[in-house]
Amino acid sequence: MKKQIEKVTTLCEALPYIKKFYGKTVVIKYGGSAMSETELKKSFARDIVLMKYVGMNPVIVHGGGPQIGHHLGKLGKETNFIDGIRVTDDETMEIVEMVLVGKVNKEIVGLINHFGGNAVGLCGKDGKLIKAARLKLRGKDVGHVGRVESVNTSVIESLGKSNFIPVIAPVGGGEDGKTYNINADTVAGEIASAIGAEKLILLTDVEGVLGKNKKLLSSLTLKEARSLIRTKVADGGMVPKLKCCIDTVKAGVGSAHIIDGRVEHSVLLEVFTDAGVGTIITDA
Amino acid sequence: MKKQIEKVTTLCEALPYIKKFYGKTVVIKYGGSAMSETELKKSFARDIVLMKYVGMNPVIVHGGGPQIGHHLGKLGKETNFIDGIRVTDDETMEIVEMVLVGKVNKEIVGLINHFGGNAVGLCGKDGKLIKAARLKLRGKDVGHVGRVESVNTSVIESLGKSNFIPVIAPVGGGEDGKTYNINADTVAGEIASAIGAEKLILLTDVEGVLGKNKKLLSSLTLKEARSLIRTKVADGGMVPKLKCCIDTVKAGVGSAHIIDGRVEHSVLLEVFTDAGVGTIITDA
Amino acid sequence: MKKQIEKVTTLCEALPYIKKFYGKTVVIKYGGSAMSETELKKSFARDIVLMKYVGMNPVIVHGGGPQIGHHLGKLGKETNFIDGIRVTDDETMEIVEMVLVGKVNKEIVGLINHFGGNAVGLCGKDGKLIKAARLKLRGKDVGHVGRVESVNTSVIESLGKSNFIPVIAPVGGGEDGKTYNINADTVAGEIASAIGAEKLILLTDVEGVLGKNKKLLSSLTLKEARSLIRTKVADGGMVPKLKCCIDTVKAGVGSAHIIDGRVEHSVLLEVFTDAGVGTIITDA
Amino acid sequence: MKKQIEKVTTLCEALPYIKKFYGKTVVIKYGGSAMSETELKKSFARDIVLMKYVGMNPVIVHGGGPQIGHHLGKLGKETNFIDGIRVTDDETMEIVEMVLVGKVNKEIVGLINHFGGNAVGLCGKDGKLIKAARLKLRGKDVGHVGRVESVNTSVIESLGKSNFIPVIAPVGGGEDGKTYNINADTVAGEIASAIGAEKLILLTDVEGVLGKNKKLLSSLTLKEARSLIRTKVADGGMVPKLKCCIDTVKAGVGSAHIIDGRVEHSVLLEVFTDAGVGTIITDA
Amino acid sequence: MKKQIEKVTTLCEALPYIKKFYGKTVVIKYGGSAMSETELKKSFARDIVLMKYVGMNPVIVHGGGPQIGHHLGKLGKETNFIDGIRVTDDETMEIVEMVLVGKVNKEIVGLINHFGGNAVGLCGKDGKLIKAARLKLRGKDVGHVGRVESVNTSVIESLGKSNFIPVIAPVGGGEDGKTYNINADTVAGEIASAIGAEKLILLTDVEGVLGKNKKLLSSLTLKEARSLIRTKVADGGMVPKLKCCIDTVKAGVGSAHIIDGRVEHSVLLEVFTDAGVGTIITDA
Amino acid sequence: MKKQIEKVTTLCEALPYIKKFYGKTVVIKYGGSAMSETELKKSFARDIVLMKYVGMNPVIVHGGGPQIGHHLGKLGKETNFIDGIRVTDDETMEIVEMVLVGKVNKEIVGLINHFGGNAVGLCGKDGKLIKAARLKLRGKDVGHVGRVESVNTSVIESLGKSNFIPVIAPVGGGEDGKTYNINADTVAGEIASAIGAEKLILLTDVEGVLGKNKKLLSSLTLKEARSLIRTKVADGGMVPKLKCCIDTVKAGVGSAHIIDGRVEHSVLLEVFTDAGVGTIITDA
Repeated sequence: MKKQIEKVTTLCEALPYIKKFYGKTVVIKYGGSAMSETELKKSFARDIVLMKYVGMNPVIVHGGGPQIGHHLGKLGKETNFIDGIRVTDDETMEIVEMVLVGKVNKEIVGLINHFGGNAVGLCGKDGKLIKAARLKLRGKDVGHVGRVESVNTSVIESLGKSNFIPVIAPVGGGEDGKTYNINADTVAGEIASAIGAEKLILLTDVEGVLGKNKKLLSSLTLKEARSLIRTKVADGGMVPKLKCCIDTVKAGVGSAHIIDGRVEHSVLLEVFTDAGVGTIITDA
Repeated sequence: MKKQIEKVTTLCEALPYIKKFYGKTVVIKYGGSAMSETELKKSFARDIVLMKYVGMNPVIVHGGGPQIGHHLGKLGKETNFIDGIRVTDDETMEIVEMVLVGKVNKEIVGLINHFGGNAVGLCGKDGKLIKAARLKLRGKDVGHVGRVESVNTSVIESLGKSNFIPVIAPVGGGEDGKTYNINADTVAGEIASAIGAEKLILLTDVEGVLGKNKKLLSSLTLKEARSLIRTKVADGGMVPKLKCCIDTVKAGVGSAHIIDGRVEHSVLLEVFTDAGVGTIITDA
Repeated sequence: MKKQIEKVTTLCEALPYIKKFYGKTVVIKYGGSAMSETELKKSFARDIVLMKYVGMNPVIVHGGGPQIGHHLGKLGKETNFIDGIRVTDDETMEIVEMVLVGKVNKEIVGLINHFGGNAVGLCGKDGKLIKAARLKLRGKDVGHVGRVESVNTSVIESLGKSNFIPVIAPVGGGEDGKTYNINADTVAGEIASAIGAEKLILLTDVEGVLGKNKKLLSSLTLKEARSLIRTKVADGGMVPKLKCCIDTVKAGVGSAHIIDGRVEHSVLLEVFTDAGVGTIITDA
Repeated sequence: MKKQIEKVTTLCEALPYIKKFYGKTVVIKYGGSAMSETELKKSFARDIVLMKYVGMNPVIVHGGGPQIGHHLGKLGKETNFIDGIRVTDDETMEIVEMVLVGKVNKEIVGLINHFGGNAVGLCGKDGKLIKAARLKLRGKDVGHVGRVESVNTSVIESLGKSNFIPVIAPVGGGEDGKTYNINADTVAGEIASAIGAEKLILLTDVEGVLGKNKKLLSSLTLKEARSLIRTKVADGGMVPKLKCCIDTVKAGVGSAHIIDGRVEHSVLLEVFTDAGVGTIITDA
Repeated sequence: MKKQIEKVTTLCEALPYIKKFYGKTVVIKYGGSAMSETELKKSFARDIVLMKYVGMNPVIVHGGGPQIGHHLGKLGKETNFIDGIRVTDDETMEIVEMVLVGKVNKEIVGLINHFGGNAVGLCGKDGKLIKAARLKLRGKDVGHVGRVESVNTSVIESLGKSNFIPVIAPVGGGEDGKTYNINADTVAGEIASAIGAEKLILLTDVEGVLGKNKKLLSSLTLKEARSLIRTKVADGGMVPKLKCCIDTVKAGVGSAHIIDGRVEHSVLLEVFTDAGVGTIITDA
Repeated sequence: MKKQIEKVTTLCEALPYIKKFYGKTVVIKYGGSAMSETELKKSFARDIVLMKYVGMNPVIVHGGGPQIGHHLGKLGKETNFIDGIRVTDDETMEIVEMVLVGKVNKEIVGLINHFGGNAVGLCGKDGKLIKAARLKLRGKDVGHVGRVESVNTSVIESLGKSNFIPVIAPVGGGEDGKTYNINADTVAGEIASAIGAEKLILLTDVEGVLGKNKKLLSSLTLKEARSLIRTKVADGGMVPKLKCCIDTVKAGVGSAHIIDGRVEHSVLLEVFTDAGVGTIITDA
């Protein structure tokens, strides 16, 4: 019995967080280890379903780099990267879309539904969610790599009214009739801005944003975040993530979080405890 | 961090219960120690607010015997009891109504609101919630002691649409223009039946329903419950409580619970863990 | 038959007034003789029900000074007044709340319901209607005497959608967890302002506002009302009532009325005839 | 002042009737003196507007025999009657429709609007309200005289949602593309049945239904009404009126009234006083 | 089969127009040959029904000069015209109203309903749609000839919610209790402005607006339209029509069209093909 | 101009069909040549968008056999067929899902959106649309080949409220957590039954159902359809299609159509002309 009492006490301790975020929308970029290791996948799905049941509106945007690589490999298709961006010819784009939309997305939908949620998978073409345009990369042609030109949130809102959980693959259609692969962090940030989300959470495979001494910075103002980029304390893949967070917070989203997806229940930890598992960026 | 992970794990363990009772109404008879001891009062209020936030619709019906006794004492007013029922003359009824509606009810409303809920206190006269009639007690006149003649749930439904938590004092008006004090268990049961609740929970100051060997019976069918009364294994105050539960379940409420209100978070324990803290009565 | 025709002719004469106030909200401070004499009580309840049926939305705020005095007397509890304000210690506040919320309020609810309305009693704690704060009285501590810090009208609106008539006791909870007794005129004025009422009507035991020659002033502009205070033509209890009316009209309420509650059907007379029974204050 | 108090007392006396018929629909056949004498016309319009404001839903169906006769006369067009029914050739029908729809109907609409209502005129063609068919009269051809084949109440319901008062001319279109003049009592009865009205009121130029001794019968059961026809105590124009009332009550309308439209405010008198001004027919 | 394929191809060609005007309101002034010749009448009714079914909201305002003349003639009533305006004494106005409201309007309603629409006829008195005032004509009294003082679109909106097609006769009531005949073009323009229509279409018996060389001008800017009037290239009846179009476009209606109602399906041709059958006036 | 008039005349000829199917749902199984030839693809997309704009609710279910074969071929993966059913091992199922959901489905969504519709792609996992179970094929294991166990239409209804066009890939999730490929005709039929569609249309690469003499049978009753199967006049792939149609019509869908998808605009031809392009099966 004592153990049971501890449990419900724990439930009650979550109440202030539940109240705080009741009815709020949280856009989560899902990827990395959290999307590849079995236990983390399950704990993520449970987290999302719980968030929904305690009154939040989670919106998932997923990546899928490794899965794409795996399938391209199977087909003996080689890929070149320019500045970390996959050069995406027509045939590659076809594979990318099939893997993201037809495999990764459906796995996530299936997992969330298995744990009691009711998810619906979307890509940027569905309901004209994302209008994409060709990304210009300093003169180099990287093919079907796109940027978000505009977001039309009506399909998300329509599904939201019936309490479905949207799971979004970062693929969009262009005015030119072509399909574009878009960076998932960017898509998550743009959608968070467009629907006026409370939070943007980026799941990563690092501890969070690190300072000069390689120690975790648990919170950053916009100014501090910009300074980390300018002073090159932040480097590599962290730079675009920080930029995405800065843009999203500037667009009015309450906070952006770069968290450690390798920790079980990382999303819940970040939202429902004071501890947190990464870095929060806010406009203050 | 490990502790934090344990915490969110606990949250996730509650998910199946949250899903099961999402959108369901639970009528709770509140009284006894849970309503007099400071810590229990707080844990009760937190439980109610949490239930509301995770999607249930709690409806509180409270008693107030000790508080009534206390105020009558202050006024030097003596009370007679016949068969455990307070003989209630006009002056006593005035005190009873003031204490239940003007003091006990408002304390509960205040406490729930303090912990983040949004409660509205009602008595049976408000919105014509309860039509009362004089209780006939084998020829003896016990004054303003009533029974529920009918329940009009429109005020509960109206408040429910705006997510208020109704807190109800067991006082009703009669066709004769008089005010009646009604047994709070009965009021809770009748309201649960009238609004088609999922559960009726009676908070008591005992472990639950005990069997022949004085051991707790954690579950009972209607048949078993009736047998306990017939064979006089159940006696004293437990008999009307069992009868109330039987009637309520027969009227279509999913289950009735007689639980130990002396345990902290007893309501959550009963609803959100397998352990339970008392006896559940179901039609099966 | 001739008498019957006269009657329906009278009904038709009310039509212009009914049209004028159709769908409008009127906040009425109820107290004094209108709340103590049997016939006046009945005529008041009938007036309110009629107003509701012909399309107006009456909101009642009641006082209860004499009833409080009566109960304190019974308990042998003496009261001191400073500047006409009852010094309210903890024990007194407990009595005040019980009398206002548990007795006076329920009597009014019962009476309105008896005459065919559907009233719901509230105090400032219900649905967090009134946030109170301790009244500062030039350095003197008068205990649990409060002022209105803010009004949250959601419970009134929620009940209004289902056509309930709200009856409000002037008791509110503070941030400090304490309960405060607030002047009922003030509560009525603040609620009228907060819900954007068409009229505020204060029932009094005087003819209305009197001029220099002690003659009734049937209408006042804000400027004239202020002048009466400044020149001390208005004195005693009339001063705070005038100030309350001025503040309410300044906050956008169409008109404030100080009327003679000793006249039967005073509310209907003021609203539905040209004669009127007191003083109307408007911003013009 | 005394007179004013009498007036509001009268208002209050109407309360039980207002409550009884709140939200109910009353279909009124308007015609005869009430539609031709100036004072009666005004009192009728006022009655209708008042009924609307105190929560009833009046639906007017009007006749127009004299007005038709007048216009035919002007054109030098003679009319034959067979069994009291106007033989209606094509040219006559054209005049009938113009007078009923383009003159009588608009006068009533204008009058109601003048007194503060918001009326919309309709004929049976509008919104396909009435599907008419040629009346078969024992082998004789009476031309464009129709009966009601079916009623489609959607236009009435649509206007009702916005609180318009429908005023209906008894002209309908047939499957054959022709226009038919229909008896207004019949149209009123059929519409009352189709929309599930509470009352059907037929305004006439007689006292009501008279018994053997030529004395007014103030109430009749269906059985008594049928007996009056069978025994020929009722004769002439009263027979079809009684039949219409019997059919309407049998179809579920609460009561049918044959009243004396020559009395000012006859409709209000019948609905809002105990006296009544004619005969009520009910199923009991 | 080939013919069938051509047909559905034609349907598909209409798609861009259907999309463009989906959900938009079009006010059509109906009159002239389109309202007198049998085949044109049918094609007009079909056009309106089709427009409704493909998602537009047509609102019809009709004239009726010839029909009025015909009936006045029958009655031997002579008419004088001043500046092309019929001098309308009381008796004439009575005939005008009967013909427009009781004959022409109902014929149109019947025709639209026959072809599968669901029309409701209205005049300016219904639902207080048009408040009229006496037209002042340079000192000359032309009697019951009115102008539009204000438009209350609530009855149109109410009917629109239930997908009825409003058909409006250009007759309105004045504050003075009198009835006024108003120019139908003007009524159409004022209603288009008041409801924020997408288009105003005036059906005429000419090709459209002609230029200096008597050639059709298929499109005009406001400036060009004004110039045509100033330079007297436009003259006679075209001047008030142009002025009406200019005012309507200035009031925010997307475009005004003066089209040739003598062409079958002229309305559809103008809305659903590039060809058009007249002149379009826009603010550009 | 003459050509234009012919065009709008054609539009008007479609009116009876538009009226007949206004607001009705049509489930279309899309596949074969209509899904592989460029012009047919475009004409199909246009047809669907037009249907939507003229008030119908099209729901698309697509196949994708050739596309699956093409991708398996690329990967050097061989397929065995048993009784025409593809033996689907785990790896094959992965490819099948990716091709159907991630390629074919998105192409259709993109095409419909390009022509002005607003489509959303779904598979059976989204919103728990289709619960699948392993198909039992007379003892032979064909792997991930499923049947429809139940259909949950809530996601279709939710999208329908916002006027999205659902495009559904015939892949479903089983209770066993596995993914199943299901025959697209079957999925279309089951969805048509579950949402109470008006029509089921199967696009094929044959003329329709042929009789003994190999002549097209343009309409069949259920009895005739069963007879064709029993007498083996229908054989090969036509048998399951006929069975699917029979089951769907028996489940209450108004009619089932087996049409020739090789004809341009075949869907519109079947729905909007009398000619039709195949066989209609109805319960009569």
